[in-house]
Amino acid sequence: MQRAAPQTFDRVLSSMCTRPHPAARNAAERFLATNPGDPATYQTVAALEEDALAYLAEITGLETPHGYITSGGTEANIQAVRAARNYLARDDPNVVAPESIHFSFQKAADVLGVELRTVPVDDDYRADTDAVRAAVDSNTIVVAGVAGTTEFGRVDPIPELTDIAHDAGALMHVDAAWGGFVLPFTDHEWSFSHAPIDSMTIDPHKYGQAVVPAGGLLFRERDVLDALAIDTPYLESASQASLTGTRSGAGVASAAAAMRELWPTGYRDVYETQQANAEWLYEQLVARGYETVEPELPLVAAELPESEFESLRDLGWRISRTGSGELRIVCMPHVTRDSLRAFLSDLDSLSPVRN
Amino acid sequence: MQRAAPQTFDRVLSSMCTRPHPAARNAAERFLATNPGDPATYQTVAALEEDALAYLAEITGLETPHGYITSGGTEANIQAVRAARNYLARDDPNVVAPESIHFSFQKAADVLGVELRTVPVDDDYRADTDAVRAAVDSNTIVVAGVAGTTEFGRVDPIPELTDIAHDAGALMHVDAAWGGFVLPFTDHEWSFSHAPIDSMTIDPHKYGQAVVPAGGLLFRERDVLDALAIDTPYLESASQASLTGTRSGAGVASAAAAMRELWPTGYRDVYETQQANAEWLYEQLVARGYETVEPELPLVAAELPESEFESLRDLGWRISRTGSGELRIVCMPHVTRDSLRAFLSDLDSLSPVRN
Repeated sequence: MQRAAPQTFDRVLSSMCTRPHPAARNAAERFLATNPGDPATYQTVAALEEDALAYLAEITGLETPHGYITSGGTEANIQAVRAARNYLARDDPNVVAPESIHFSFQKAADVLGVELRTVPVDDDYRADTDAVRAAVDSNTIVVAGVAGTTEFGRVDPIPELTDIAHDAGALMHVDAAWGGFVLPFTDHEWSFSHAPIDSMTIDPHKYGQAVVPAGGLLFRERDVLDALAIDTPYLESASQASLTGTRSGAGVASAAAAMRELWPTGYRDVYETQQANAEWLYEQLVARGYETVEPELPLVAAELPESEFESLRDLGWRISRTGSGELRIVCMPHVTRDSLRAFLSDLDSLSPVRN
Repeated sequence: MQRAAPQTFDRVLSSMCTRPHPAARNAAERFLATNPGDPATYQTVAALEEDALAYLAEITGLETPHGYITSGGTEANIQAVRAARNYLARDDPNVVAPESIHFSFQKAADVLGVELRTVPVDDDYRADTDAVRAAVDSNTIVVAGVAGTTEFGRVDPIPELTDIAHDAGALMHVDAAWGGFVLPFTDHEWSFSHAPIDSMTIDPHKYGQAVVPAGGLLFRERDVLDALAIDTPYLESASQASLTGTRSGAGVASAAAAMRELWPTGYRDVYETQQANAEWLYEQLVARGYETVEPELPLVAAELPESEFESLRDLGWRISRTGSGELRIVCMPHVTRDSLRAFLSDLDSLSPVRN
């Protein structure tokens, strides 16, 4: 079997992952053989997990971090729902979320045996608070909002959703898996400091520039995290809150290293560069006559005929589409203005009539 | 913040993880930035996952592999139960397993809302088949057996358990997370070729010498795997069976590389070396008067006074104990005869009266 070529990111416009920062890569390589799931045996990486959580708390406005570095946003979202389910112990639990919620909530519902009630979004792809209010009831355990939706990069009205959640006796969860490392440089209200939210997903392995797998799950209250604990008879440590058992030391160490290196200046630079790229791309697409969604965060969605989409894929562009069919370009740190120019040039070559 | 020193394995006797093989480490470093959870975007690593599954199938006697590379044994065990739960759709599902089952089954039960019925083991720490037979009923979805228990390294009577499972209309799952890469060199009946088992956990990141995270989940039938699928609207691929979303390309690539390098000769060498180490350690502990469990696989458990256990930990030995209190030494590839000699020498220094 021949040696496979590793991934290059030159034409990846669809992923919410990115090329890791060199400091993150270096840390990952040094901790490839460690297991933060067994902290008493692997003490160094356990200390790095504390560092990583402290950074995440600072970024999200949380006074005292309770949580852990997950395998990614899906685990974090599943575990936020599981914690609420165990903590609140309602008879027939349900989760209320906008239809823009990440599909990991469908997974969480199936895995955990809770009902997922998705409600419409408004004209600008944000959670419709009236629809959320109408959907919650006394069995609601979580209201979930998204701070940076996967498909359109929108930020739900987190403070209003938090009020609705708490009025119903439910917990408020914010999924900032993708948006969490750019939102601190915007005026959006999304974090623990903007509303009394109960939990948050924020992934170092997306805009945080850590290596995969490094997600983050944070709780305001220790008691809610503790609702996840399972006894661990044979490990040196006595209980475990994570969904997985053995965990990636590489991910944890790289998350700590990336945040040490990039917070806040490096992340601010990425935000400014990529927001500018997204706005530039938006203007370019509009000028070409495509129906395009204005980017609120560095993500551009545009209507594109199926044939053009397929042709661009054939030219090697790694692109994807929203559930409703729009082309979706995620301006991650590896995306350059030059690569966007090359992409537009290929697009233009397909539809010469527009030029 | 200073640069943390990475883990050394010199005194780690408690872990079921180990120093990765150089080929695995190299592959991991090259694929740190890839996501097999998005196979249409990250095609190279998706192809490596196929390679890894083909090796796992060969190792476990499975004709056609259906499954995926998980984050570890816990995810694989949870997903085996979830697949059975979804596939069989019983009213009030239960799982029957020996009390020696890994604690990930407690986690699975909590996460998935299924009842876990643990039954006693026999005098040699193996599942008691009479007790299992008495515990199953028409709501049993899984009978689980272990091929290489976490605490004593025992192999349950897999063919008999499979008969019991199938007589009850349940699926048979084998947890070979730790044992799967040494059992092919023994006479134990544990694999798809020894009994019509339905699913198996086997972890490349344990004896397989891949980097963390690289577990394995295999199904005999495609339909059972498919009971895990969730639609993925915005990815280039259309559905996802894994519990996590984004996954570690490093783990997948390293698993494929390790198996390419080591199967079967390298793994056989490790088994022979470590089984000899375990038997030697057993003799040494018996000669010193400790009640010691004879090693069937490369794992030694012995009764040790609390004070000696704590003193050895103070001397820097990473050791742990079973749920019933025995010291537990796992002879992983990084464990050498010299390190065991050094361990015994430290043990002797604590109890000079015995020499």
